[in-house]
Amino acid sequence: MTSTAPRTERRSGGPDGTGRSLAALFAPKGIAVVGASRTAGKLGSALARSLRGFAERGGHLALVNGRDDGMFPSVHAAAEAGPVDLAMVCVQAAACAGVVAEAAEAGARAAVVCSGGFAEAGGPGTGHQEELAAVVAGTGIRLLGPNTSGFLAPHVGVTASFVPGVARVRPGRVAVVAASGGVNHALSFLLTEAGHGISLAVGLGNAVDVSAPDVLDHLAADPETGAVALHVESVADGPRLVAAVRRLSARRPVVALAVGRHDIGAFAASHTGALATSWRTTRAALAQAGAVLVDDERELVDAVGALSVTRARPARDPGVGVVTAQAGPGLLLLDDLRGRGARVPELTPATRHTLATLLPPLTYQRNPVDTGRPGPELGRVFHAVASDPEVDVVAGYALHEPDAVDLVAAAREGRVDGVPVVLGLGGTGADAVQGRRDLLAAGIAVAADPRGVAAGTGALLADARVRARRTGPVVPRQVPTGVTGAHDEDLAKGLLERLGIRTAPRRACGSRAEARAALAGLGGPVAVKILDAAVLHKTEIGGVHLGVADAVALEEALDRLDAVGAVRYLVERMAPSGVDLVLGARRDPVFGPIVLLGLGGTTAEALADVAIRLAPLAADEAAEMPGELAGRALLDRWRGGPALDAGELGRIASALGDLLVANPGLAEMEINPLRLTATGLVALDAVVVPTEASDAQPDQ
Amino acid sequence: MTSTAPRTERRSGGPDGTGRSLAALFAPKGIAVVGASRTAGKLGSALARSLRGFAERGGHLALVNGRDDGMFPSVHAAAEAGPVDLAMVCVQAAACAGVVAEAAEAGARAAVVCSGGFAEAGGPGTGHQEELAAVVAGTGIRLLGPNTSGFLAPHVGVTASFVPGVARVRPGRVAVVAASGGVNHALSFLLTEAGHGISLAVGLGNAVDVSAPDVLDHLAADPETGAVALHVESVADGPRLVAAVRRLSARRPVVALAVGRHDIGAFAASHTGALATSWRTTRAALAQAGAVLVDDERELVDAVGALSVTRARPARDPGVGVVTAQAGPGLLLLDDLRGRGARVPELTPATRHTLATLLPPLTYQRNPVDTGRPGPELGRVFHAVASDPEVDVVAGYALHEPDAVDLVAAAREGRVDGVPVVLGLGGTGADAVQGRRDLLAAGIAVAADPRGVAAGTGALLADARVRARRTGPVVPRQVPTGVTGAHDEDLAKGLLERLGIRTAPRRACGSRAEARAALAGLGGPVAVKILDAAVLHKTEIGGVHLGVADAVALEEALDRLDAVGAVRYLVERMAPSGVDLVLGARRDPVFGPIVLLGLGGTTAEALADVAIRLAPLAADEAAEMPGELAGRALLDRWRGGPALDAGELGRIASALGDLLVANPGLAEMEINPLRLTATGLVALDAVVVPTEASDAQPDQ
Repeated sequence: MTSTAPRTERRSGGPDGTGRSLAALFAPKGIAVVGASRTAGKLGSALARSLRGFAERGGHLALVNGRDDGMFPSVHAAAEAGPVDLAMVCVQAAACAGVVAEAAEAGARAAVVCSGGFAEAGGPGTGHQEELAAVVAGTGIRLLGPNTSGFLAPHVGVTASFVPGVARVRPGRVAVVAASGGVNHALSFLLTEAGHGISLAVGLGNAVDVSAPDVLDHLAADPETGAVALHVESVADGPRLVAAVRRLSARRPVVALAVGRHDIGAFAASHTGALATSWRTTRAALAQAGAVLVDDERELVDAVGALSVTRARPARDPGVGVVTAQAGPGLLLLDDLRGRGARVPELTPATRHTLATLLPPLTYQRNPVDTGRPGPELGRVFHAVASDPEVDVVAGYALHEPDAVDLVAAAREGRVDGVPVVLGLGGTGADAVQGRRDLLAAGIAVAADPRGVAAGTGALLADARVRARRTGPVVPRQVPTGVTGAHDEDLAKGLLERLGIRTAPRRACGSRAEARAALAGLGGPVAVKILDAAVLHKTEIGGVHLGVADAVALEEALDRLDAVGAVRYLVERMAPSGVDLVLGARRDPVFGPIVLLGLGGTTAEALADVAIRLAPLAADEAAEMPGELAGRALLDRWRGGPALDAGELGRIASALGDLLVANPGLAEMEINPLRLTATGLVALDAVVVPTEASDAQPDQ
Repeated sequence: MTSTAPRTERRSGGPDGTGRSLAALFAPKGIAVVGASRTAGKLGSALARSLRGFAERGGHLALVNGRDDGMFPSVHAAAEAGPVDLAMVCVQAAACAGVVAEAAEAGARAAVVCSGGFAEAGGPGTGHQEELAAVVAGTGIRLLGPNTSGFLAPHVGVTASFVPGVARVRPGRVAVVAASGGVNHALSFLLTEAGHGISLAVGLGNAVDVSAPDVLDHLAADPETGAVALHVESVADGPRLVAAVRRLSARRPVVALAVGRHDIGAFAASHTGALATSWRTTRAALAQAGAVLVDDERELVDAVGALSVTRARPARDPGVGVVTAQAGPGLLLLDDLRGRGARVPELTPATRHTLATLLPPLTYQRNPVDTGRPGPELGRVFHAVASDPEVDVVAGYALHEPDAVDLVAAAREGRVDGVPVVLGLGGTGADAVQGRRDLLAAGIAVAADPRGVAAGTGALLADARVRARRTGPVVPRQVPTGVTGAHDEDLAKGLLERLGIRTAPRRACGSRAEARAALAGLGGPVAVKILDAAVLHKTEIGGVHLGVADAVALEEALDRLDAVGAVRYLVERMAPSGVDLVLGARRDPVFGPIVLLGLGGTTAEALADVAIRLAPLAADEAAEMPGELAGRALLDRWRGGPALDAGELGRIASALGDLLVANPGLAEMEINPLRLTATGLVALDAVVVPTEASDAQPDQ
C-alpha cells in the first residue's frame, strides 16, 4: 500500500522534544468559542455548555458569533474583554483558516478546530487543510485538529469538547492521547466508569500541527499524569513518535493500542490516510520504545488504570502470586495469566508453611492460593504471598462480601513495598463500586472481573520487563560501510562473514573445471548453485542442486545449471540438517531500518509468524525476538533437535540491523535460510538488494 | 493426563433428557436453612438474609439450628410449620449427609449443600461426598452441590446464595449454568451491571447429583429463559453434555465458555478433578452441539446478553452492516469484527444511493457507514443499512449525545424485521446507563464499547451460522465393520479405498523380484517402503526411500530396507507434489470418537493447529474443518499451488469418523500425509491402531 496520507504535518518538535509549548492550548486563561450557538444539538452550543465549568472557575469564556447580538462579534472583540489564549473553532471548514488567523492576530496562541470537512473528506477539504497549515506556519499558533472533538483537562476545568457528559470526567492521573476524537472520548468515559480520573485527554484528529509526539512530550513534564494511554491509527513520522515514546516511557508508563491488525484499509484511508507501514511494525516500534502493548480498548483501560495506581519493580522475568477467594474465578484468572505468558511460580516452602498456618488444609496453596471463603486472615495471606521472593505482583479475585472480610483493610495489611496488588472485586451495585474506589484510593489496582485482573497484572509485568530492559542508547558496532550495488551469493555471504555470521565452506567457480576442483576440495556432498546476482529466486528456476556427492552427479547438476543460463557456479558443502529460520533487514517507509525474524517454510509464512525490531538494536534486545514467534517450540530441542542460543541469534540480528543503518546503499538483506544446527546458526543463502535496485525488484 | 475426577456423579437423566424434575429445587414453596446463624459473616447468616425476599413474597422460610432457641430445632420441626421442598444445608461436611437424609425424610425433594470439604479437599472429604451420593441414591432427593454458593431464581424470589448483593440481581431472560459457584456469581453480577436480568443462575460445585445436563434440560422447558450462559471446567460425561446442549440449543441460544486453554492442571485438579480430555476437544464438542463459543467471561456477558435480546435469521455466511457516528471507534469495531472472521460486505449500489441522500458526501458510506455527527437522519440510515440484502446484522457505535440524536428512536425507526441491531453507546453516568437500558428494552443489543459491540455481533453471527447448519441426526454411511487387529500400510490403504479415499497405485511385494516387477509395472519414480504392521514410524528407522526411478536405485533402496529388517516391501508410485495434511480419527476418553485435521509439517505440529469434531458427523460439517486452521491460506492456491475442495475433504473426514464409530476394534486411524494435489486429495501413508494394542503403543 503506498502512502497518500492527507496530513500536512509540520515538524514542530526537535528530535530532543523541544517543541513549542502547549501550555496555552491545555491550560488557557481565556477561551473564545468561535461559532458558538444557542441551538441545542449544534457543535457550538454543546461546546459552550461543556466549558461552563471553566467560566465558573473564573476563566474568561467568550462566545463569538457575528450573527448573534448577545455574543462577541469577533475574536478581537472577545480579546478586548479578557485574555484569549485559546480559540475553539466550530465554523465551516472553508472559514476555519480565516478564523484561526484572526485569533492569532488577536493574541491567541492556540486553537482547536472541531469542524470536519478537511483532508479526511478529500476534494476541497484538502485545500482547506493546507490553508490551516499555512496559518500555523505563518503565525506560530498551536493548532489541535481539524476534525477532532477536542480535549479534556479536568484539573483546570477545561473540558473543551462538544460531547455531553465530559464535565463528569473527574481530574486524575491517567492521560489519553488518541488519534481520533471519538476514541479519546470513548476511552475517557470508560476510564471514568472504571473509577479513574483524567489528567489530560486529547483527540488529535487530522493533526495539522499538534501531533502525538508533541502531546507525549508535554505529558513527560506534566506532574499530574501517572500513566498514559496512547491510541495509534497511522503514523506520519515514525522516528519522531518512537523518540517521544522513549522519552516519556522513561518517566512514566505508556500503554499503546494500535488499530489495524486486520484489513481495515479502505475505511482507514478515508479516516486517517493510507497506512504506509504495517500494524506489526508499528507495534514493534512502540514496544521497543518502551510502551506496554494492549489488544483492545478494554485492556487499554485495565492496563493504564493499573499502571496509574502502582508499578512493579524492574524484573526480567517477574512472577505473579495469585490469591483467590473463589476457585472458579481463580481458574479463569490463572488461565488468562498463562495465556499472557505470565509466570505463576510455585511458592517457596517458607511461604507455604506460613499459608498452612493461616488457611484450612483443604485449599490449594502452592500458587494460586485458594483461601476458601475469606476471613480476617486474608491480610496475612496477601502479606505472605507478596513476601515470597518469587513474587513481583499479587493478583487476586474475591466476590464482594463485606460481612466476611474487609478487602481494603486486608490489602493494606498485606502490603509489601515494591510488590503491587491487582484485585478483582465481583459484585453489583453502589457498594461494590464503592469497594473498588476504596481499593483504588488505597493504591490497589482494581477490576470487576478476572479478565480485568489479568489485563492489569499483565500490564504491570510488561512494564517491569520494559524497565529491566531499558538501557542507554544503542551504539552501533563497527560494520562494513559503503556497501552497495549488486551482490551475488558469494559476495553476499562474504558480507555476512565480515559481520561474524557463519556460512558453510564454499567456492565460487568460473568454470566446470573449477567446480570439479571445488567438489574434490570441499568433499561431498555439496550444493551446486547458479552464481548470478541477477537471479534472486534460484530454486524456482532450477538453479539449486543439493546433495551432490560424486563426479557423475556433479556433471549432471552442472548440465542443468548451464541449461538455465549459468555462467558461474557456487559449490558449497552441505550443511547438517536442522531448523530453518529467515532473518532479514529492510527499510520501513515510516520507521526506517527494521530487522525481521521468522521460521522457514511455507506454514510459518502463511501464518505471517514474524518478530520485528527497529534497527539499530542491542544484541540483548534482538535475543528476545525468537521468544515472540508462535512456532518458537521448534527452536527448543523439538523432537530431539538443536536448541537455539538466543544470544547468538541476537548478535546476528543486531549486526544485520547495524549493516543496514550504516549503509544507505542497501535497501534490504535477507538470510534465507539461516539454519539452526547442532553446532549453531549457519547462513545457507543470502540476498542483498541495493537501494537503487529495490524499486525495480520483483516482490520477494 | 489420567482422570482422577473426585465427582461421583449419578446418571440421573436418560439420554432423552428425561431426568427427574428440578422444580422443587428451583421453584420451592418452602425452604429450610439448616445451619442458619445470627452471626454476621457465617454462611448460614448470609443465606438467611439473602432469602428474606422469599419470605416476604409469602414463601415458607424456616431457619433451622438446634443450638438456637429462636429457630427450628430440626427439618422435621420446620416441615410441620409449613411446606419444605428445599433444604439449604450450611453445616460441616461430615454432618451434611445426615441432614440431607433427614430433610428427605421430612418431605424435602431437593437440597443444596453449600459447605465445602468434600471431594475437592480430598482425604475424609471424599468419603463425605460418597455418603451424600448414597443419600441421593437412596432417597431420590435432588441435590445441588456440595461445594457451591447456591443458585439464583429471581423470578420466584429465591436467591439461594450466601453471597451478599444477590437480592439485587433482577429477574430477566439470561440463564447461567456455571461449573463453579464463584463463577456463577461473578457472571450474574456482570450481567446485572450490563443491564440484564436473570431467569436462573446455578453454580454446580461438585455435582454429586445435579449436573450441567440436568440444568440445561430444565432450561429447555423454561419459558422465562431467552439465552443460556454455560461455563465448563471439566466434563464428567461428554455424550450426555453434548446431547443436552444439542436439545437446548435447538430451542434457545447457548453461549459456552470452557476454561483450560492453558496449563492450569494442578490447580484445576484440586478444584474439579483432572481434565481427562483437552480444552480443544471440549470446545469442538460444544460448538458441534450448537453452542456459540466465547473466550472469556466478558465476551460471555456480551454474547449471551445480545442473544437474550435478539437473534439473526439462519445464514451460512451472514454479513454485518456497520454504522458509526465516530470514525475512530468505528475503526476499532471494524478491526475487531474482521478478527472474528465477520464478513463486512460492500453495500449494494441501491443502499449507497439511499445513504448518499441522507449523509453529507464527506463520510465513508460503503460499509462501514460513517454518519459524521449523527442527527435526525440516523433512523433512516439504520433502515437503509438493515434493508441491504447483504446485511444480516447491524452493528453500530455512537457517543451518548442526546441533544444531537435520540438513539432509541433512531433504532426503532431503523428496524427491519429479522435484522438485529447491536449498538455501542459510549458515555459515563446515569443517563448513559439509562440510554443503554432503553435500547435493551427496545430489543436492541447494547454494549459500552466497540469491543462489546463486536463480541455481541460475533455471537449473533455465530448463532446464525449454527442455525443454518443445524440438520437432523447424522446417519452414518455404510462402512466396513469388524475391522480390528494389526494393519500394515497396504491393508490400511485398502481400508481407506473401501471408504472411497484415493491412494497412489501400489504393489505389496514379498520378494525383491516382486519389487522389481512392481517398479516396471508402475513406472518410476516410486516410493519403496518397509511393509510391516509392527513398524509405525517407518521414516525414523530408514524404512522409506522416495523418488526411486530406476533399477539401480531400487536395488540400493531394497538393500537398505533389508538392513533394517524388511521382509516385505511396498512399492508405490510417487504422488505429485502438493500441500500435506494430517487427518486422523481416535477415541477421546470423555467424548468418544473424534476426527482431527491439521496441516503437515513440524511448524503446524508445534503450533498445535488442529480442527476437531466429534464423530459421527455429516460431510457438510466436516467440510468446515479446514477453514478453522490458522494455516488455511496454504490450502487456497498458495503460491500458485492447488486449491482444496472442502467438500472432498469433508467426505473423507466424515468417512473416517464413521469407520471409528462402526468399529469398536479400532482405537485410532491416521492418514499422514493426506496430500492436496492438483487433482485432489491422496492418502500417502496410513496407520491403523487396533483397540487392544492402543495402550501398548508408544506415543505417536
